Amino acid sequence: MKNKKTIRAAIVGATGYGGVELIRLLQAHPRVEITSVISSTNPGAEIIQGFPHLTNIMLGTLDAVDPQLIASKADVVFLATPAGVAVELAPQFLQVGLKVIDISGDYRLKSPELYEKWYKRTPADAALLEEAVYGLCEVWGMEVNDTVRLLSNPGCFPTAILLGLIPAVAAGWIDLNTIIIDAKSGVSGAGRGLSLSSHFAEVNENFSAYKLNKHQHIPEIEQALTRVAGKPVVTTLTTHLVPMNRGIMATMYASVAEEARTDADFVNLYNQYYEDRPFVRVRKAGTWPATKHVTGSNYCDIGFAVDERTGRVTIISVIDNVVKGAAGQAIQNLNLMMGWDESTGLMFAPMYP
Amino acid sequence: MKNKKTIRAAIVGATGYGGVELIRLLQAHPRVEITSVISSTNPGAEIIQGFPHLTNIMLGTLDAVDPQLIASKADVVFLATPAGVAVELAPQFLQVGLKVIDISGDYRLKSPELYEKWYKRTPADAALLEEAVYGLCEVWGMEVNDTVRLLSNPGCFPTAILLGLIPAVAAGWIDLNTIIIDAKSGVSGAGRGLSLSSHFAEVNENFSAYKLNKHQHIPEIEQALTRVAGKPVVTTLTTHLVPMNRGIMATMYASVAEEARTDADFVNLYNQYYEDRPFVRVRKAGTWPATKHVTGSNYCDIGFAVDERTGRVTIISVIDNVVKGAAGQAIQNLNLMMGWDESTGLMFAPMYP
Amino acid sequence: MKNKKTIRAAIVGATGYGGVELIRLLQAHPRVEITSVISSTNPGAEIIQGFPHLTNIMLGTLDAVDPQLIASKADVVFLATPAGVAVELAPQFLQVGLKVIDISGDYRLKSPELYEKWYKRTPADAALLEEAVYGLCEVWGMEVNDTVRLLSNPGCFPTAILLGLIPAVAAGWIDLNTIIIDAKSGVSGAGRGLSLSSHFAEVNENFSAYKLNKHQHIPEIEQALTRVAGKPVVTTLTTHLVPMNRGIMATMYASVAEEARTDADFVNLYNQYYEDRPFVRVRKAGTWPATKHVTGSNYCDIGFAVDERTGRVTIISVIDNVVKGAAGQAIQNLNLMMGWDESTGLMFAPMYP
Amino acid sequence: MKNKKTIRAAIVGATGYGGVELIRLLQAHPRVEITSVISSTNPGAEIIQGFPHLTNIMLGTLDAVDPQLIASKADVVFLATPAGVAVELAPQFLQVGLKVIDISGDYRLKSPELYEKWYKRTPADAALLEEAVYGLCEVWGMEVNDTVRLLSNPGCFPTAILLGLIPAVAAGWIDLNTIIIDAKSGVSGAGRGLSLSSHFAEVNENFSAYKLNKHQHIPEIEQALTRVAGKPVVTTLTTHLVPMNRGIMATMYASVAEEARTDADFVNLYNQYYEDRPFVRVRKAGTWPATKHVTGSNYCDIGFAVDERTGRVTIISVIDNVVKGAAGQAIQNLNLMMGWDESTGLMFAPMYP
Repeated sequence: MKNKKTIRAAIVGATGYGGVELIRLLQAHPRVEITSVISSTNPGAEIIQGFPHLTNIMLGTLDAVDPQLIASKADVVFLATPAGVAVELAPQFLQVGLKVIDISGDYRLKSPELYEKWYKRTPADAALLEEAVYGLCEVWGMEVNDTVRLLSNPGCFPTAILLGLIPAVAAGWIDLNTIIIDAKSGVSGAGRGLSLSSHFAEVNENFSAYKLNKHQHIPEIEQALTRVAGKPVVTTLTTHLVPMNRGIMATMYASVAEEARTDADFVNLYNQYYEDRPFVRVRKAGTWPATKHVTGSNYCDIGFAVDERTGRVTIISVIDNVVKGAAGQAIQNLNLMMGWDESTGLMFAPMYP
Repeated sequence: MKNKKTIRAAIVGATGYGGVELIRLLQAHPRVEITSVISSTNPGAEIIQGFPHLTNIMLGTLDAVDPQLIASKADVVFLATPAGVAVELAPQFLQVGLKVIDISGDYRLKSPELYEKWYKRTPADAALLEEAVYGLCEVWGMEVNDTVRLLSNPGCFPTAILLGLIPAVAAGWIDLNTIIIDAKSGVSGAGRGLSLSSHFAEVNENFSAYKLNKHQHIPEIEQALTRVAGKPVVTTLTTHLVPMNRGIMATMYASVAEEARTDADFVNLYNQYYEDRPFVRVRKAGTWPATKHVTGSNYCDIGFAVDERTGRVTIISVIDNVVKGAAGQAIQNLNLMMGWDESTGLMFAPMYP
Repeated sequence: MKNKKTIRAAIVGATGYGGVELIRLLQAHPRVEITSVISSTNPGAEIIQGFPHLTNIMLGTLDAVDPQLIASKADVVFLATPAGVAVELAPQFLQVGLKVIDISGDYRLKSPELYEKWYKRTPADAALLEEAVYGLCEVWGMEVNDTVRLLSNPGCFPTAILLGLIPAVAAGWIDLNTIIIDAKSGVSGAGRGLSLSSHFAEVNENFSAYKLNKHQHIPEIEQALTRVAGKPVVTTLTTHLVPMNRGIMATMYASVAEEARTDADFVNLYNQYYEDRPFVRVRKAGTWPATKHVTGSNYCDIGFAVDERTGRVTIISVIDNVVKGAAGQAIQNLNLMMGWDESTGLMFAPMYP
Repeated sequence: MKNKKTIRAAIVGATGYGGVELIRLLQAHPRVEITSVISSTNPGAEIIQGFPHLTNIMLGTLDAVDPQLIASKADVVFLATPAGVAVELAPQFLQVGLKVIDISGDYRLKSPELYEKWYKRTPADAALLEEAVYGLCEVWGMEVNDTVRLLSNPGCFPTAILLGLIPAVAAGWIDLNTIIIDAKSGVSGAGRGLSLSSHFAEVNENFSAYKLNKHQHIPEIEQALTRVAGKPVVTTLTTHLVPMNRGIMATMYASVAEEARTDADFVNLYNQYYEDRPFVRVRKAGTWPATKHVTGSNYCDIGFAVDERTGRVTIISVIDNVVKGAAGQAIQNLNLMMGWDESTGLMFAPMYP
């Protein structure tokens, strides 16, 4: 059924939510064929054993992590794995000629020291960190092309936050010393691994904050903002857990410069910045997005509130953490790497309600 | 972008969940173009005013209910309206040459008396009731063809229940006097109209039963089972409200006949009955579907448990009430009416989690 | 602050939901003092480490499982432990002179064979099984007095189900061969132990069935119904998981005898049966309880729907599984064992919403 | 059962969540008797008609709003009414000699102009605004005594926010120009009135922001902080809706002064400030409260995170909006007005899970 000009994709980490979302999206992609679904923990098992919702959709069994085998079956491999795994696997996959799209945080930070400090893990090879392209499509998509061997997909929080901040930072419209980010995520962001903090009766009817000033996405956000601003940016980030499955909202605060006085100013600025980018939707002045407006889709919706009383702007940015924050943006990056339209296979509407 | 051989569709009731799901599914359908979105309550308003998640996806404004206008813009009209509206509108739309697919209950019961008794409303014209084709695709899909003018889409509960019972009834494997149906639905089934029974703080962290022995889907279920059995079937139905948005589970009980002694027997029977039907997935013996296995998709998943101790079978059937129980099955019926493959535009995977 | 005539209570299993609910209820009980909170997995740890909501309420650290120590500090010990633990611990506690209230299923079945078959575990000592008193207060409360050494607290599902069925069974108003029970529980019923089936993103926005015809509460229900009926009763039970923390609803079906023709008949029968019992509330004809009506309280609410068309009655019974289904009923039993009013410390209103 | 030294209380607005929580808490209060439950919309109806969970607990019918009648039955009246109602009713109740505890916002702002600006309503009589005592117990409890005729109960957001900020503001530890408040509330905060924004399928699996820079609690917060600081304080507040019933979290940000360098410093400061206040629990350094830690209780839990990198402190404060944010604090104020221990009838543990 697929177009002749397809490529073959392998997915590592198919027992997690990122991996299974890649299956959902790629099996509907017109130019990609999933040829291997890989699990280190349960090779040989039927795919539908862990995910019965894929009955009749994804036949076959889980492959082991075998670079030679995967290279014989696939052109590109997605790594939807926990931190630390891609440090090990990406070099092996690159060596056998596979293109690698890493959804984990292992290749996002250019500085090995920062990785070690924030992730408390051994960093990846410095040359590979240098080579890896950070695929925030709407900002640095021009760097994602057919020469890219190792694509580092942005984190879920950074995607929502950076798309919400970068146009204002680039325009010099907000005071870089005043950026405060209050972020909220659905529970799927914590993955499928068992923990008391994802146990239903603990999370349901509860709202909690975690990793205050310690979240490993902080250096990723600051690295990107610093690059845009041309000078060091430091931010405050609090992450919270919302009793829902999908969705991230970042509520961001900053003092505004003189030239940015109204909501409409911000709307215009962002509309210009994201002109022709299909997945960012800037909301008209006086309205703000809710996470449900993007559920199941690759959209990032952004809204603004400038407060004359305080001279601050509040910027609200929402994504589906599993799509735009993981699998969807990874496919968007694949599209760019292949020279296809970036929206190929991704133009589906949010599911509501 | 759409294929030349497309048809033009209008949707009435686009301020409700059935209507907005038709928009989500039809805008991705390769052979249908949505040419009019209609609301009696708010004509002239932007579509995205009520549904901001459709920003950049569904432009334009809501049309008024004007049969001539609609006939000039569309070939087929979907009625996603509350009970009683299609009684009024369907004749008008048919008269101007439109094909009508009614998602409400107005044309499901052949007997005007039964409609009046259970819906407490004036029934539709008897001739139209006679003409209307009941589109339970996997059972009576052969009757859905290009001669059909008025298609009556099955109810959400009846879809799950009938697909779960009919093969066993047709085979004579269950005692028709013993059928008990315990059904559960997510809250979207109650629609977008405001009521205390859909008020968040009343429904959340709550599980309730409603309309005991009074649900208007009872005569629809019995009419279909009676047709299959060739003799009158009476059932007990309890409907419950689950604190979730989407999903229906029907848990059904009946005493089994001698020849049906094991789960595997039922699995085989159902696999034969639904051979080549893409949207029914019979689970292997010893496993049962959960509603999340079909969320966002057009699948109906079915599982069995035969109990030697009691001589009863428990049949579990799940659907997404907004898709297979409403918009998805309506499109499946449109596909059949047009002579297309019934799965056209509907072969997407469930969203998980 | 406590009355002089208090007793001292120890709680084993204080890292689970049953244990922590005992703490909530007992610390407000006017005649009980909690003198030891015990955990086999984490002795020495601060109680509030695992349960920060008890900050300033429950000081001190977790004791180890040491019968002599506990006997020196307490008069009665509650076992809020997983299946199999009380088989080991109850004899040790009895030997040192403690009264034992077991909230697990270890002493509910009189037949060791049935326990072994349904629990797949080694049963308790036969003499102790014989001695243990099954504390379904509203039915066999007269057997709970100061001579009881070992009290077996009913299971959560059996409590809701038996209170809903026994008056009708005792009166001969339902056909014992036709009893079908469709039960639904909030997720706290699965405990605090980690499992994929209690993982937030798997359970939320989902409704599932489990252990069809295999639930270990089936023999407990049948043992009690058989005792009431004076002849063997066999039932069909399906248990379901509801995406909420607390609450059980049992929806029960049976064919009715001639003399029970209306909802009002059932209401009268049950009001007579439960006269003067403070925790059963029979709803007036035509209304049914929802689980939220009893959240946080020790009530069991019951409603009826007799269907003339089918000759069946539907009985709906709801409890809070953590209170009336566990900790609350255990305290009610303690009250009876001490000769106090059975409602002592338990007459608080449900929390709504 | 009640102590002789009881007072008689009337509750206006008993069809809402604040009113029904007053019933739950007052019926368990040892020194208060509920003698009248009042509704303007449905006088004469049984109380349990709208709230079946009160079956057997709260007998009787709803009274009409009749000051003379209420004065004959009660000593104190609680107003759990929407904005604008207490403007009308409080003077009438005061005139007939009742003490009035207003849970609405009508008497919180000393300035009629501010009320008019933020509430878009006609303000109360200026003399009564002047007389009304703002009952933030842990801060201005010394002003709540037996001379108070009109007690204005703080708003739900202000309670969590002010208890979290005031000790730091009073100590001069935070830069008053940098206070940013990101607040989140469960849906019960929106009341029982029907609206699309409280419709289950719209709120569930959704996280949204509302009233950016426009929330009527902003002037209340600023009035209190200004009073503490002795100079004008302006703040930024964003309120969000969490898909849960109960709970408020305020996440607050400010730049810290030199002397406040560690989490432990803040913990010590707050422990001193709230010494001997039973309902504020300061969490030890490195831990933060979640809303579930206070569900159903009158506690306010507070935690801190000082970030050396940015020189900011993040303060997290949680309450149950229906208890400490409404009915519970109102009773705490009643206790103070009567000269009783402020915790009378309020020392129950949170419900977990």
